[in-house]
Amino acid sequence: MQRLKVGAIKLHSLEGELPPDKAVTIRRLYIEEITATDLSKVGSYSIDIDRVVSRNCENMIGAVQVPVGVAGPLKVCGEYADDEYYLPLATTEGALIASVNRGCRAITKAGGAEVRIHRDGMTRAPVFACKSVAHALETTRWVEAHLPELKAVGEATTSHGKMLGVTTYVAGTSVFIRIEFSTGDAMGMNMVTIASEKISQMIVEETGAELVALSGNMCSDKKPAAINVIMGRGKTVVAGVFLSDEEVREMFKTDSETLTSVNYRKNLVGSARAGALGFNAHAANVIAAMFIACGQDPAHVVEGSNAITTVDRMEGGVYVSVTLPSLQVGTVGGGTGIDTQAECLKMLGVAGGGEPAGANAKKLAEIIAAGVLAGELSLLGALGAGHLARAHKHLGRGQR
Amino acid sequence: MQRLKVGAIKLHSLEGELPPDKAVTIRRLYIEEITATDLSKVGSYSIDIDRVVSRNCENMIGAVQVPVGVAGPLKVCGEYADDEYYLPLATTEGALIASVNRGCRAITKAGGAEVRIHRDGMTRAPVFACKSVAHALETTRWVEAHLPELKAVGEATTSHGKMLGVTTYVAGTSVFIRIEFSTGDAMGMNMVTIASEKISQMIVEETGAELVALSGNMCSDKKPAAINVIMGRGKTVVAGVFLSDEEVREMFKTDSETLTSVNYRKNLVGSARAGALGFNAHAANVIAAMFIACGQDPAHVVEGSNAITTVDRMEGGVYVSVTLPSLQVGTVGGGTGIDTQAECLKMLGVAGGGEPAGANAKKLAEIIAAGVLAGELSLLGALGAGHLARAHKHLGRGQR
Amino acid sequence: MQRLKVGAIKLHSLEGELPPDKAVTIRRLYIEEITATDLSKVGSYSIDIDRVVSRNCENMIGAVQVPVGVAGPLKVCGEYADDEYYLPLATTEGALIASVNRGCRAITKAGGAEVRIHRDGMTRAPVFACKSVAHALETTRWVEAHLPELKAVGEATTSHGKMLGVTTYVAGTSVFIRIEFSTGDAMGMNMVTIASEKISQMIVEETGAELVALSGNMCSDKKPAAINVIMGRGKTVVAGVFLSDEEVREMFKTDSETLTSVNYRKNLVGSARAGALGFNAHAANVIAAMFIACGQDPAHVVEGSNAITTVDRMEGGVYVSVTLPSLQVGTVGGGTGIDTQAECLKMLGVAGGGEPAGANAKKLAEIIAAGVLAGELSLLGALGAGHLARAHKHLGRGQR
Amino acid sequence: MQRLKVGAIKLHSLEGELPPDKAVTIRRLYIEEITATDLSKVGSYSIDIDRVVSRNCENMIGAVQVPVGVAGPLKVCGEYADDEYYLPLATTEGALIASVNRGCRAITKAGGAEVRIHRDGMTRAPVFACKSVAHALETTRWVEAHLPELKAVGEATTSHGKMLGVTTYVAGTSVFIRIEFSTGDAMGMNMVTIASEKISQMIVEETGAELVALSGNMCSDKKPAAINVIMGRGKTVVAGVFLSDEEVREMFKTDSETLTSVNYRKNLVGSARAGALGFNAHAANVIAAMFIACGQDPAHVVEGSNAITTVDRMEGGVYVSVTLPSLQVGTVGGGTGIDTQAECLKMLGVAGGGEPAGANAKKLAEIIAAGVLAGELSLLGALGAGHLARAHKHLGRGQR
Repeated sequence: MQRLKVGAIKLHSLEGELPPDKAVTIRRLYIEEITATDLSKVGSYSIDIDRVVSRNCENMIGAVQVPVGVAGPLKVCGEYADDEYYLPLATTEGALIASVNRGCRAITKAGGAEVRIHRDGMTRAPVFACKSVAHALETTRWVEAHLPELKAVGEATTSHGKMLGVTTYVAGTSVFIRIEFSTGDAMGMNMVTIASEKISQMIVEETGAELVALSGNMCSDKKPAAINVIMGRGKTVVAGVFLSDEEVREMFKTDSETLTSVNYRKNLVGSARAGALGFNAHAANVIAAMFIACGQDPAHVVEGSNAITTVDRMEGGVYVSVTLPSLQVGTVGGGTGIDTQAECLKMLGVAGGGEPAGANAKKLAEIIAAGVLAGELSLLGALGAGHLARAHKHLGRGQR
Repeated sequence: MQRLKVGAIKLHSLEGELPPDKAVTIRRLYIEEITATDLSKVGSYSIDIDRVVSRNCENMIGAVQVPVGVAGPLKVCGEYADDEYYLPLATTEGALIASVNRGCRAITKAGGAEVRIHRDGMTRAPVFACKSVAHALETTRWVEAHLPELKAVGEATTSHGKMLGVTTYVAGTSVFIRIEFSTGDAMGMNMVTIASEKISQMIVEETGAELVALSGNMCSDKKPAAINVIMGRGKTVVAGVFLSDEEVREMFKTDSETLTSVNYRKNLVGSARAGALGFNAHAANVIAAMFIACGQDPAHVVEGSNAITTVDRMEGGVYVSVTLPSLQVGTVGGGTGIDTQAECLKMLGVAGGGEPAGANAKKLAEIIAAGVLAGELSLLGALGAGHLARAHKHLGRGQR
Repeated sequence: MQRLKVGAIKLHSLEGELPPDKAVTIRRLYIEEITATDLSKVGSYSIDIDRVVSRNCENMIGAVQVPVGVAGPLKVCGEYADDEYYLPLATTEGALIASVNRGCRAITKAGGAEVRIHRDGMTRAPVFACKSVAHALETTRWVEAHLPELKAVGEATTSHGKMLGVTTYVAGTSVFIRIEFSTGDAMGMNMVTIASEKISQMIVEETGAELVALSGNMCSDKKPAAINVIMGRGKTVVAGVFLSDEEVREMFKTDSETLTSVNYRKNLVGSARAGALGFNAHAANVIAAMFIACGQDPAHVVEGSNAITTVDRMEGGVYVSVTLPSLQVGTVGGGTGIDTQAECLKMLGVAGGGEPAGANAKKLAEIIAAGVLAGELSLLGALGAGHLARAHKHLGRGQR
Repeated sequence: MQRLKVGAIKLHSLEGELPPDKAVTIRRLYIEEITATDLSKVGSYSIDIDRVVSRNCENMIGAVQVPVGVAGPLKVCGEYADDEYYLPLATTEGALIASVNRGCRAITKAGGAEVRIHRDGMTRAPVFACKSVAHALETTRWVEAHLPELKAVGEATTSHGKMLGVTTYVAGTSVFIRIEFSTGDAMGMNMVTIASEKISQMIVEETGAELVALSGNMCSDKKPAAINVIMGRGKTVVAGVFLSDEEVREMFKTDSETLTSVNYRKNLVGSARAGALGFNAHAANVIAAMFIACGQDPAHVVEGSNAITTVDRMEGGVYVSVTLPSLQVGTVGGGTGIDTQAECLKMLGVAGGGEPAGANAKKLAEIIAAGVLAGELSLLGALGAGHLARAHKHLGRGQR
């Protein structure tokens, strides 16, 4: 403490001299003193932090506890997830779990959510500066003519990743190379970034283009961007369920016409009028809650929120679906190994690497998509029945 | 347990019969058995959950612990925050805090981040169905002619909220009424939803338009949407700092031209080419980490990621800024009262209601914006110096 | 000619020495010689060019002739247009007029298109550079506090324009002032640009902000931009019509369910999936054809194409609508005074200034919106009946 | 006339009984009478209309004359266009040609515009309805597994088109198949639509999916859509030029820093803030004027306006570029065969089919891109020098 105060040791260097728990405690006490704040609850974590301090969190002072509730059982009929599940949801938004739970009940009663994954690949897009418009074309042509070499160089950096392809884009003298990797059960940003660096070095050497940034925003990571809506990033997952007119009436106290109309005017026309890249009710809520519970990167909620919800009026009922073009999940790496998060993954039967590689991450993606479907159904139903404000009044988060 | 198994009591009804901790424990044990999973770490929370179970989380089984580290000190020169702060960041993404920390050091050394809030208001936009195009115009005209009445009706539902205005939009027979409230220190979604219901009822009665959904997606809540970029939602905050050429060289091992060029080709040209609504490097990372630490709604990271980062090349240095058009924060309600999150808010001096009302939420918004600036600066610097992949290799999250 | 060849006179200076027709002829002959091309058809115009050469077209060499056909009669029930009209359409796209004509027949038979204008104002948004984030806020605050002065300065430049309002936006150190004018029967870009210059000068003097560009792209002129979709630019016009199930069957050889489904999957879901700012079938076709016939600025087709088409399934039929958030038209100025274009405006009863000012431009906007509705209805009907490719085969434009 | 009035013959049937000129005259006289308007100028066309009435324009009554001026000479250094050109611009917007002309002078003096085409293909995207989420995946998998068969079926409908590829997209139960064809010197919409119909029929037969619409808006034709920005449609063309500091000063009365700053704050930051899909100053103006002069489809100005303009500050000057992701042009079919338009194409040496097929359309695309560059340069220069309003005042279109 004394050395910290006089600057003889840096706050982030404590782990170099002390065991993790000790270092975290000293750091917390220092911050408590500097900020005159009692941080004892933050300091009362029970997770094992030996790996956390080196892999997940620098300058650690403790942990926040996010309440976890369950919704379910939810029957999922996917190619990887084919069972009933209880969803762990880490949230502080009152009424959310109750709402998702209602959606789960409806889906399960209707026979389960059908889920399919359409594509799967993580991307990174370095940007290069060229000397001229002609040089830019030479650069993209060189890349397109040397995919096997780039694949070899990229894959040499990883034992799990496989390069799926490369797309080139140009804007004046800027060339963007969007590199896509299959990353097994890892979410894969890290893997593809490291591979992209090697690929970029080869491009620089061979074309004379200058590497400006290893990420040139056409990846596009953690920003709302149409490229992810259109071409996908991570997993592109679709979940759907047919509900009969009677099921709609019974479970949502509304009718199929109303449900169709709410989706049409709100999720489609309203989003169109708002210049949106997301045509859904609240996909982000379910994704955020499951991401935090399951140790996913919560900033990826941004891409997850690019969802499209549809309600097709059909003979005798409605077919309701959600399409998640860019859902980024993993069951190894990131926060997945932290004790509490690992337990939530285990609850779903997806902790660690799958058999074959990638199967667990895909299973998790299917379950999350089904969970989003439950959330959408329930909120559309509540809006149709005029219940939204009421739910918030009863289960709300406080101050009005 | 026995009654749960035979269905004699519902999972969500346990709190009706047992004290919260007991109910949560029973529920957790039940889920453990059903899913054959040990959830003891999830069950070892230390927060007080008496209010949590009724306000934040239904069907609670425990909590996940998200590691919290600190970055700072960060000097902030705002209208509400005017001091040095240590930022609490709840994250599992290795290298993030180290990166933000480096940005904090640079900003503080350069004299602090200047921060200003341009507007502040939470919105909800119900959608109504009209009989015809003519009826739609009559409806919007009626609304525009009766703002004082709508204001009175809306404000009667809340002791803190003030209606700032209403904007009307039409798409065919659908009419959208975007209602904006000042919501003090609360994030305010709940408040404005309840007020909007009363306002909507009056519109229905007076115009004959039919309320289709209390949220018509022009709000737009938790979806990427240009309307939030352009008109703002929550707080519109801008943070900036001038760095001299020497400061850039010394702190980021790159130079002002390179920093300018990275931002130009990546954040502006790259985002443009990707059809983006976010022109930044990784604003979502900092926002997510601070939101989770401070009990904010993590699904609002979606709107937070709508940020624009600029680097202006100036005489002798660069002026770097971030603009957050739609940052949604509160210091009361939501997850702000949970013990660990409340401690993080206290660390920043913003726990609970401010003096005057709204001052704490604004202070928090200014600090977060400065934190985003630190994150942007640091990542742009790392990209300019070619360090991104290296950082990930050393501090990465594991599996390659 | 000789002097042109030796460079003794500039190509654009011919009007200074010769009467217009002579200057145009000499210039055309010179270009014919230089490019070795016979331009006699381009040279065989019959319009009076005395004003054209000074107001519409520099370096004139003649004119292209764009074929004009008519569709109609189309019954329009607007607040300004309330009659049956024949629409002049200048087009070279085979099948377009036949298609619009079919839509006109259906609408007229169904009682006419109901049309309403929701707002009307032309915008220009200069961009200013400020010294810092704080200076940017001072600048926007100054502007918001001095609207009457800015209005006075702006309106002093015009006899017809009235300033409707100003909206301020900030991005880092860049401040955008979106100025909106009512511009009577003129499309008004010119008028608002000139007024904006004076307003900008006052802002520069009073705030110390530097004017970077009189147009800062938040106007937004002739670029696809959500700001125009959301806030409107020019006129925001909506047209709609109810068709009974029988009318749909009889006129489009399809049924109401199919028409609804085509619109839902194509114009809403398909556009959403494409990251679109236009949710329609081919609004641009009708707008382009009418704009060229009526002397409007054809680059404004860009904003016109921001349309949303809806098909509401209703009891006994469908209500079909188009919403044009940013339709920019005028009946004075621009190309409206050229002989052939003026005749097309006269056909619609909207040539020159209206009574009161603005009435003619609004009438034209209503008629065009009804024409777009006819085009949408017809194409949706053809798609529903599976006729699209067939129409193109019979009336197509040639080479396959 | 008498038979028209009593309805004994339909307006569009006149060509069945009369030679074209006669039919057009009778129709015009009828419209003159019905609308009480003199249309003699519209009726005084000099183009040969024998093919026009059957291929370009139903219900023809005459033609509008759009003034054509020239800008140039403009030196273009492309792979197809490698010469100096005079650009024909059909416009009624005063000051436009003078402005483009100034840009041409600057570019030519600086050695010419370097232009490159990055990709070339016309698209059509039918939408199919599937029974379920699983059926949708089966459908896209079937398509991806049968590309050679689809290619054979599609190419059998055309003698010039070659299928370049197919991309599949899904949104719930809607499947979109984006089919891309190389279309030689034709713009190609017609060709690809007819081929898509056959391809769609095969998909329907083999997968059981139902064809909802031959165009499902992921094409995306004549709507602003990110898919065209990102993946391109028609030709993706880039043009650039280096101007030394002295050239900037001399030709634009401003300096390189100012030019860079105008582009940065207006075209990049301003467009970002406006939620735009076009990051340019006025690309649509030049595209519209050249499209109308050259018989292109003016509704395609919508996609053309998706341009990105960049100004790179470099040692000793600036490199200015425009990127047109989706420029749709042809030199055969459409309006290209009309006498006046054909003359304009001849002026550029691109009338009719090229050698090899496609060379003329590509040459035209390169010239237009260079023209857009001239327009951008000139307007940026004028804004930098503070000249915009002044130009409009001197050369404006009238009413203020």
